[in-house]
Formats: sequence, structure tokens, C-alpha cells
Amino acid sequence: MAARSNSVYWMGKDSLVVSMTLFAENRRRLCERLRVNPNVPRKSVVVLQGGEQTQRYCTDTDNIFRQESFFHWTFGVTEAGCYGTIDVDTGKSIVFIPKLPESYATWMGKIHPPEHFKQKYALDEVHYTCNIADTLSKIQPAILLTLRGVNTDSGSTCREASFEGISQFQVNNVLLHPEIVECRLLKTDLELEVLRYTNRISSEAHKEVMRNVKPGKKEYEMESLFQHYCYSRGGMRHTSYTCICGSGINSAVLHYGHAGAPNDKTIEDGEMCLFDLGGEYYCYSSDITCSFPANGSFTTDQRAIYEAVLKSSRAVMAAIKPGVSWPDMHRLADRIHLEELTKIGILQGNVDEMVKVHLGAIFMPHGLGHLLGIDVHDVGGYPEGVERINLPGLKNLRTARLLQERMVLTIEPGIYFIDHVLDKALADPTQSCFIKNEVLQRFRGFGGVRIEDDIAVTSTGMELLTCVPRTVEEIEAFMADAVKASKDFDHLVSKKL
Amino acid sequence: MAARSNSVYWMGKDSLVVSMTLFAENRRRLCERLRVNPNVPRKSVVVLQGGEQTQRYCTDTDNIFRQESFFHWTFGVTEAGCYGTIDVDTGKSIVFIPKLPESYATWMGKIHPPEHFKQKYALDEVHYTCNIADTLSKIQPAILLTLRGVNTDSGSTCREASFEGISQFQVNNVLLHPEIVECRLLKTDLELEVLRYTNRISSEAHKEVMRNVKPGKKEYEMESLFQHYCYSRGGMRHTSYTCICGSGINSAVLHYGHAGAPNDKTIEDGEMCLFDLGGEYYCYSSDITCSFPANGSFTTDQRAIYEAVLKSSRAVMAAIKPGVSWPDMHRLADRIHLEELTKIGILQGNVDEMVKVHLGAIFMPHGLGHLLGIDVHDVGGYPEGVERINLPGLKNLRTARLLQERMVLTIEPGIYFIDHVLDKALADPTQSCFIKNEVLQRFRGFGGVRIEDDIAVTSTGMELLTCVPRTVEEIEAFMADAVKASKDFDHLVSKKL
Repeated sequence: MAARSNSVYWMGKDSLVVSMTLFAENRRRLCERLRVNPNVPRKSVVVLQGGEQTQRYCTDTDNIFRQESFFHWTFGVTEAGCYGTIDVDTGKSIVFIPKLPESYATWMGKIHPPEHFKQKYALDEVHYTCNIADTLSKIQPAILLTLRGVNTDSGSTCREASFEGISQFQVNNVLLHPEIVECRLLKTDLELEVLRYTNRISSEAHKEVMRNVKPGKKEYEMESLFQHYCYSRGGMRHTSYTCICGSGINSAVLHYGHAGAPNDKTIEDGEMCLFDLGGEYYCYSSDITCSFPANGSFTTDQRAIYEAVLKSSRAVMAAIKPGVSWPDMHRLADRIHLEELTKIGILQGNVDEMVKVHLGAIFMPHGLGHLLGIDVHDVGGYPEGVERINLPGLKNLRTARLLQERMVLTIEPGIYFIDHVLDKALADPTQSCFIKNEVLQRFRGFGGVRIEDDIAVTSTGMELLTCVPRTVEEIEAFMADAVKASKDFDHLVSKKL
Repeated sequence: MAARSNSVYWMGKDSLVVSMTLFAENRRRLCERLRVNPNVPRKSVVVLQGGEQTQRYCTDTDNIFRQESFFHWTFGVTEAGCYGTIDVDTGKSIVFIPKLPESYATWMGKIHPPEHFKQKYALDEVHYTCNIADTLSKIQPAILLTLRGVNTDSGSTCREASFEGISQFQVNNVLLHPEIVECRLLKTDLELEVLRYTNRISSEAHKEVMRNVKPGKKEYEMESLFQHYCYSRGGMRHTSYTCICGSGINSAVLHYGHAGAPNDKTIEDGEMCLFDLGGEYYCYSSDITCSFPANGSFTTDQRAIYEAVLKSSRAVMAAIKPGVSWPDMHRLADRIHLEELTKIGILQGNVDEMVKVHLGAIFMPHGLGHLLGIDVHDVGGYPEGVERINLPGLKNLRTARLLQERMVLTIEPGIYFIDHVLDKALADPTQSCFIKNEVLQRFRGFGGVRIEDDIAVTSTGMELLTCVPRTVEEIEAFMADAVKASKDFDHLVSKKL
């Protein structure tokens, strides 16, 4: 079906213009896969149900709606309460929208006719949700393909489409999920363009934060600034995940920032900051971590740990290409951390022996990185046939696949000093023999360093999507310039006002 | 039970310090009410279940947790997954917290022992949720009072507490809801202090927006700026409701700003802005609307409509005191609007006759205001015995009560020009006879004006919590100063850099 190329999503100003051909192509790819699947009969129709508007508990306070990710990938529709279907043989797309009461126009805005949405999203047809059974029965589908499957990160099962009258159709809820997941795994050129944009804006927002950070500020001031930059400059209303703005000891808490630990510490002089922040545009994610000293100057120890992590990050980047095993990349990062920690003097002995007792996971308990797309932990990590490796560190990898061109992933090695993990290692003679505790003591309370970039696998290697100051020299120079600019600026203002 | 007065909630810097005695007093008031209720037996125990951490659809992306409002009112606990109980006879409070796995310390932060939370929230006891049935059975309660009741704004029923082992207890789920709702209705001094704070910060944030608005900016840039101010300066991570930043025609869409109409228009010269924005601190709300011209200068028509609304707002404020009927306040505002619209020349004829045909609801389809507290549409609007008035406009009131000292409400009259509502009135001869259509034409596309303040009813009148420029002169002077400051500033910067 021909997509109307003038149909776009755009938040105005310098924000990205996204053509609806992105979703037409996604649908085309999905139909192609389904047509070659011998278990999918002719006259199959895909049926997806979009997300619904929800409220805070029993109140009428709306949570801001964000589309369900599979539905977004397929149709790009931003409104709640919709359904969508695709005729697999022809590729014909229909979206069903709620029929709104007249009062909607007073409270929520202009009631647009189906034709409006047909144009807005470059669809073949748009009808009302109340007519879904009637419309589908006219097509006389052999089978409806609904979406049911387990998200391998959360363990939750996605909600299968359901509507009044569905019982009159043959429904298959197992065929679609693995196929659409494989489609989402590999990003098209149009999708890559959006991910480049989310990375560009989020990178700029990180730089804005680095320009403004200083001892005495609250961690949440930096969260707020990041969000403000992403939204006001990039049209990103949502972040891809809860902002992590850990300083000092909090930089060793991998998912810091949630309601139980809400970025509420004061940033102190001499501390490291670990800010893991990503904005989302039109449901496409970014996921970037910058680690830097709050005062702009690395101490010797901070530099040593930072450069160890940067070394593993860059070694992984150099090794990435199609066919490479992701767990091998994790192992590569681990090994470099162990080598560097030995050079620093925290560890001693033979690195091969350290690897055998999984010492790397003491310092990097999380996986090296994960797939990224419409979800920050994007789907497709463990399809049938790919098994989780049940070993320390590696078991936390969100995928154990071989890399393919057009996969987008985070590369996010880190070294952390987490008391209860270190204590456990020290209590285990097979691990403690490698640890020079008298040196390690110096790093208690240090927190951690994570360097996280987003990359796309290319035919020969990778494309780096993230662009922030990365070397110690770049960071120190960038933050020094920021302080200087701010001082000039204060001077200017105080002179005149 | 004695509350430990050094237990506080505080986001640091200039944000408000809230003592846990606020919740101790809430619990004390609730127990007092329950003890005089003849249907509540001795040895009753209140059992509430707090909110739980949720995720985006089937993914592992957490939604930022915000506590359930009844639980917050009672315990002030910010963590997810808790229960709380109060012994009605003694007032003794116990909170039950989830027992966290060791891995939590790596991913989410330090695992605090029960004693930490006992101190943090000034509770009598803290145990793990797995021990709730055991702990309660030792108390040998005559009855557990669980919370079940309908929210009169949403029509939704709140989720009743449930835990493994509850079947061994006698449970009553009807007695508690009306009593706790009546407690939430009247705010204590400590609660009023928090509401004064949320209003102060939100008022300042509105002024920051007014300083920065100008034709050419996107509506969402103003939303972002408001949120940034509230969070970075006020420690408010959440807003009380979805930000409404309507300009021009969008200012007539009462709940503009949702995902289907996401504040994405460019603000144009000559348009009115209607920005309805409120920040939330420690779950306490604010709800403020400012209406002003995008370019800082009212046209004659804009001034006329604005001053009509301001007149009704201030007339209502002058009339408010305990014993006054809220529907009467709505009628008062409506009448003033009709009088002023007649002076402007949009209406003609006898205002008493206009009232009889509900002409006021054509221009103000919503209610005059609502209760405000932990929920932006706070509970208690329609207890048993208070009936909704099924007439245009009045039927949208979220309460029809007589005012009482310590109620907190919004006063938010508005005049809107909504095409489909006007067309309906013009098609109805009983209404159209009052409308001078040739004058009305001039206001098509005008949008609307709303002026919304938050107030607390006092023994003799009311306290205004909101503090923003309100008269035409105040607004024009404030915005002119802002433009001047900005020009000076641009000049300074361009001279030097």
C-alpha cells in the first residue's frame, strides 16, 4: 500500500520530522515474514490492541498516556484506546479509533473524523472501534493473529487483543509474537534516524547537565534540568526510564533514582557523579550514562577507575561486528576491568584465574548492555534457542545473541564498589586471594563509574550514536570551559545589574 | 502515641520541611471519628494497603511510583508495596514493609531495617509484610476495617486491602471509607502549611512561565519550564495533573494537554494563553490557572472577557465563608458572567431570564471549582445525603456541599467560546434570543479565559493560597518588566560574547 509521504510526526521547531513511511515499512516487513512462515495460512489478519488511558489508583487523575510499544512500532498512533489490523496477504492496514461523545469536544478537544487519522497516520482505512467485528467479518479472515508472548526482561506477558465479537473468529495467539519481535530486533534506516535523534538530544542534555553541575546542588536538580532540556529543546515529553542521578556512594546503586531513593542527596565536592539519563522521542528511546567528578577535576583514583572502564568500553566497540557473540563482549569487558584493577593495585595475581572464579562480576554485577529501541530494554533478547548463561554477571545480560547488522545496543561497562558484594567476595577464599584489601579500603564509598553509549551494528562494525565528552581530558576541559563561561557570565551580570 | 518530632520529609535546600506529626494527627483524628461511630466495635483495627510499583505495559520500565492517596494521608510513606494498620482504641500504628532480597542492595540501594522506617515515619512499629497476619492475630482484633468505596469524581472503587491470611479475620469494608473521607475533607494546620507551600512554588513557576512566554514558542516549552521550576526549585517531582498549556483556540479546550492534544501548538502573536498548571509536593496538590495574552498586552476584547471572569472570581471570594452553599457560588459566578457579557454586547435581555434557560453553562460548561488536597479533585464531594444537581453547568460540580472551615477548594470561573456549544445554543430559540450573533462572531476562535485560585475556608471567610499577577494592569506590568529584563540581558550578552 502506498504511504502518503506528507504524513509526519513533528513536535515543531528543530525537532525531528518522522515520516509515517517508517510504520508502513515496519508493517511491510512484518507481513513479509509472516507470509514465508508455513504455519501462517492465507487470509490471515494481524490484530493488535493499543494502550489505554489509565488513572492514578481510583481517582480521575490521568497518567500521561504513552502508547504500547508493539502497537507503536506497527502504527505510530499516539492516541489511546485504538485497535489496528493488517491483512497479511495485501498489507492493507486499518486502525479503529474510539467514537467520542460530543462532550469530548468541550473537555478534550476537536473530535476528528476517521479521515483525519487516515491522513495523519497514512493508513488505508480508519473506522470506529465499535465496528471492528463487522469490518473484520467482511474481510472473512482465515485466522486472526493476536499478540501473546513473554517479555524476557520483565517476565510479564503482553495483553492479547480482545474485542466484542472476537469469538466468531478463529484466533491464533502464538504465531505473531516471535515474528514481530524479530522484526523489532533489526532497525530500519528510518528507525535508525529516530534513534540518532534521541541520542543527539540526550547527549546535548547530558552536556547541559555537566555544564551546570556543582557541589552543593541536589541530584534531582540535575534530573530536572535534563528533562527540561530534552522536552523544551527536543520535544521529548517522556524519558525512556526513571532518571538515575547518583553522586558519591549512590553512583554504585545501579538503578538509583526510584521513589525509594529519589535522587535527593546533595552532590558533594570530591564525589563522582554517575548520571544515567535518556530522553524518548515518539516512543523511541535513548540510554546514556556519563560519569564525571562533581567538581570537574578527577583525582588520581577517580581517573584510574574511569580510564579502566573507558578502556573496556572502547575495546568492545573495536570488536563489535556482525557475528560476534554478545556474551563474549561482556567477557572482554570483564577481562579488561580485571587487568586494569590489577594495574591499579586493587587486585593481584593471574587474570585467567580471576576469570575462572567470576571476579569480574564483583565489580560489574550487571550485563554489558542491552538491545535498545522503542523499549529501553528492547525485545528480542532471548528468542527460542538462545539460552541465558547462568553465571555471575553473564546471567544479567538481557541478550545472549550473536550480533547482527541493524541491532541497536547499549555498551555500558562499569566498575562499582558495592559494600555487600565486596564483603561477600572477601569472605570467599577463592575470590579474596586476588583482592588486596588494604588498597580496596581506599575505594570503599567511592561509588562507581559507568560509561554507557548507544550503538548500531553495521555490516563491518558499528556506528556510535552517542556524542558526549568521554576521555578524562575531554571531560575536564568541557567542565572547565563551562565554569569559565559561567564565571564570565556572572561577572557580566553583576557588573551591569 | 507520641510522634517523634525530628522525623521529617524534606527535599533539601529551600523546600518545605514536613513533620511526621502531620500523619500522626491524621491518624488521631481518624481514630477519634471511628471511636464515636456506634457501628465500630471495640478492638477494631484499620488496615490499609499502599500503592504498588507498576511498569509500562508488559515491559520492565518502571512508572515512577506515587503513593496511593489514602495511604499517604494516613502514613506519609513514600515506598511502594507497604501495608499499614492502626489500632482504633489505642491509636497504635504499624507499617509493614516488603522484605527485600539481597540483590536489592546492588540494584536499588541500601536495604534499611524496620527500625529505619519506624524512625523515618515516626511509627509505633514496623514489620515485614510477610508477617502481617501473624502480627495482627496477636492483637486479636474484633474486626479489621478495610477501605472500599467509590470515588465520586471517577466512579472507580478503591482497592481494598488484601493479604495472605486475611480470611482468618472478621472484615468490614463499608465503615471506614466515609469516615476517612470526612477526615480528608477538612485540612489540619499542618496540611494547610503544605498546601500553602505547593501554591507558593506553583505560583512562582507560573510567573517564571509568564516571564518567558512569547509568540513563536511552543506550548510544551512552557509546560517543560513550569515542571522544571517546580522540581528544581521546589522539590516537586510530580505535577498534580497533566499540564494544560492552551493558546488561542486551545484555551477553550478544558482539559487540553493530554496525549491526543499534547500542548504542541506554536503560540501566536495576539492569542490568549490559558495555562492550568500545578505542582505536587509530598503528594499534596496545587491547581492554578493563569490566562494572559501571549504578547503581554490585552486587546479590548481580551480585557473585557478577562475582567468579566476576574469579577466573578473576586465576587465568589468575597462571599465565601462557612455555611455557604457551593452551588450558590457557582450560580453567583454564572450570573456575573451573564451580566458582564451583556455589558460587552454579546448578550442582550434580562439576566434572570437567561439564568432560567441556563445560559451561563454555554460560556462556563464546567463547575466553579472543586475540593483540593492530596488528590487534585479531592475526595468528599458527594457524601451520602448530598445530591448532584442535574442541571447544565451545576451537574459538573465536583461537590454540592455547604462550605466548612478547613475545606480547601479551587475557585476557577471561566468564559469560553466553544463552537459546538455556541452552535447548539444558537439553534435553541429559548437561548438564541439572548445572543447577539453579530457580536459573538467576533469571539469565534478567541478561545477562553479561566482564572483559578486555591483557597482555604476560614472561620469568617477564606485565605487565598495562590499568589500570581491577577488584574490586567498587574499582568501587563509584570510581563513588560520581564520583556525589559530579557532585552537588557540579551544586550549585555551580545555586547560581550
